Amino acid sequence: MRQVLPFILCGGAGTRLWPLSREDFPKQFHRLTGSETLFQQTCRRLAGRPFGDLFVLTNHRHRFLVAEQLEEIGTPAKAIVVEPEVRNTAPAACIAALIAAKNDPEALILLAPADHLISDDTAFVSAVESGMTAAEAGALVVFGVPPDGPHTGYGYIETESGTSEVRKVIRFVEKPSKEAAKGFLDSGNFYWNAGLFLFKAAIMLDLLQAHAPEILAACRKSLDGAREDPTFLTLDSSYAKATAISLDYAVAEKAQNLRCAPLDAGWSDVGSWSALWNVMEKDQDGNVARGEGETVFQNTRGSLTFSDRACVLIGVENMVVVATEDAVLVASKDQAESIKRAVESIKANCGLALDHTRIHRPWGWYQMLERGDRYQVKCIMVKPGGKLSLQSHRYRSEHWVVVGARWK
Amino acid sequence: MRQVLPFILCGGAGTRLWPLSREDFPKQFHRLTGSETLFQQTCRRLAGRPFGDLFVLTNHRHRFLVAEQLEEIGTPAKAIVVEPEVRNTAPAACIAALIAAKNDPEALILLAPADHLISDDTAFVSAVESGMTAAEAGALVVFGVPPDGPHTGYGYIETESGTSEVRKVIRFVEKPSKEAAKGFLDSGNFYWNAGLFLFKAAIMLDLLQAHAPEILAACRKSLDGAREDPTFLTLDSSYAKATAISLDYAVAEKAQNLRCAPLDAGWSDVGSWSALWNVMEKDQDGNVARGEGETVFQNTRGSLTFSDRACVLIGVENMVVVATEDAVLVASKDQAESIKRAVESIKANCGLALDHTRIHRPWGWYQMLERGDRYQVKCIMVKPGGKLSLQSHRYRSEHWVVVGARWK
Repeated sequence: MRQVLPFILCGGAGTRLWPLSREDFPKQFHRLTGSETLFQQTCRRLAGRPFGDLFVLTNHRHRFLVAEQLEEIGTPAKAIVVEPEVRNTAPAACIAALIAAKNDPEALILLAPADHLISDDTAFVSAVESGMTAAEAGALVVFGVPPDGPHTGYGYIETESGTSEVRKVIRFVEKPSKEAAKGFLDSGNFYWNAGLFLFKAAIMLDLLQAHAPEILAACRKSLDGAREDPTFLTLDSSYAKATAISLDYAVAEKAQNLRCAPLDAGWSDVGSWSALWNVMEKDQDGNVARGEGETVFQNTRGSLTFSDRACVLIGVENMVVVATEDAVLVASKDQAESIKRAVESIKANCGLALDHTRIHRPWGWYQMLERGDRYQVKCIMVKPGGKLSLQSHRYRSEHWVVVGARWK
Repeated sequence: MRQVLPFILCGGAGTRLWPLSREDFPKQFHRLTGSETLFQQTCRRLAGRPFGDLFVLTNHRHRFLVAEQLEEIGTPAKAIVVEPEVRNTAPAACIAALIAAKNDPEALILLAPADHLISDDTAFVSAVESGMTAAEAGALVVFGVPPDGPHTGYGYIETESGTSEVRKVIRFVEKPSKEAAKGFLDSGNFYWNAGLFLFKAAIMLDLLQAHAPEILAACRKSLDGAREDPTFLTLDSSYAKATAISLDYAVAEKAQNLRCAPLDAGWSDVGSWSALWNVMEKDQDGNVARGEGETVFQNTRGSLTFSDRACVLIGVENMVVVATEDAVLVASKDQAESIKRAVESIKANCGLALDHTRIHRPWGWYQMLERGDRYQVKCIMVKPGGKLSLQSHRYRSEHWVVVGARWK
């Protein structure tokens, strides 16, 4: 049987998991549910049969995180493709198809977001396998999660009714009203769009040629001019000319041969703190404590803490408490999704919404420990073999104290 | 008219305002309600007529905080008396009486806790003045706050009924049942015990001689052996032999000539986070934000934040959120008083309940910035003219970087 080449998309910013997830360190790179990050879990899920070499598409800002987290789990990628600017999924799919087609235009590609949780890997593989026949026959295959409630925040896929597992797609419906969502739930022919795509490289290139030729042209050029080094394949700046549009809008909605494979594998987009609470194992009071700090729940129910320091909750119900080095969030679980407005307001005043105090670099990371009047103290971690750029400052006096060393 | 010598008692630990207030830095030394600490507000309130020289009684652990905070507001004390061990208010009253009696056995003394809030200083002075006549006539005067609710956490004072302002005390009632407290409220002859005492030095010594002679003996000895330096008057170790008992139990309940002066001056013991919320000015949604961090209230009502970092509350009601460098508290306002149990549980596991990361010393303070494997980074602030003890370490390598200087 033919292999599937997994292309993992790491583009999401995940601002709804603020203050943990930020633009410079979004949710897919955090250890949200266990000892591995969502990105690492995704990589593991896409290793072994029927999957072939792993490809990762990431943006400039997160490339070192990607390389570091891949190294951590000992899962090398065939290529880490770096986008010089964030576009959307249509250009990403185009790059994936162009790369795969170089070796084999008939290659099957699975485009998979890095920031979703899937609890049942076996069921996931079965779902992919069930879609492979249709994809080999030339279909663009999307994956549909059987809805367990009238969620209004997701995109829906309507399929033809019938008994076959993989069905023809009738239409996409983006974020329906509550009433419409309830109807969808009853009909049995509606699925949540999990954002996963399975297709043949040549078919995707045909579709792009037909529906988004300027994306195809820009991506082809950016790949031709790409710069390759031992770690990254960096697309050239013409990539920025590709329209930032989703694969759903640019291609999928217009494709004739569109199929939906059901994905019943414990899927969650972990799109909010309450979604994280939903998927976590809870104690007898429905509480979950994550993060490094010790947590005490006293007379508290249905709550989630994610704290880097000691955390005490007293007489609290259905609450989310997140504490990081520079911010605290306390939100009612049922309003955790409306965090965007508050973050905008914080963003207007400072960089808190964007950056963590620890900044990742190719050679390691640095973290601000203290900043005062005309001085600052940083902790710098240089990875074994890592190399900082040479710099000198005319109006700065630097004092370096080595507190630990390990040699490669 | 005779003067009143104020003796401020700084002994409280204020664990119910954890994680801000801790044993090493209790609530009276925090800027809870404004730009001055409760201790500083108390010192200001007890300056000017009818008050004479200021005396402060503090324990060993907090003596530098006392000296520093007095200096900050430019209010020197006649003496900062240091207890080598924490006792209770009876030994403190005894020390106050002994010190005052040295100059004048007829001197009037006001014993005042440093950790209470009084919003109306003029009314406070009037209350003290109203008690002075009785005290000069030989009475032990306590101050009673007209209760504004059936509070079960306070001690009550029952007085004779009548029209005179200062009335004879019938009895003390410690923490009554809800039902009893309701009855007290209706009777009109019950007051909350504000923990303030006004008396003549000689009268207190007589009372102690009669009811607690061993406290008098131990205190006399500790004062005879006291060590005086330019800043502190440190009692000698015999002070530890004085029974740790409150003035209420040891003397007041047994005194024949006991009077209660009403204190209607916006008194609060700030004994919990909800008590602090009560006394603070709130926005139109009933929210209060204190601390250095920016706070965003979104769809939030009746809540208090006290945070050293950015803080976002979403969809929250009647909640207290306190964030410090090493701990976060989220508590329903109506359960904020039951914090002790949670703090005990935290205490069992680490020092969080006791110490802040910033430690105050006579010469300034130091704060842990970072601690790792066999290294730590501290920020050290030496006050102008301050002097650290000379130390050398055989197995430690120290690197000092001076990042700022100011000379005395």
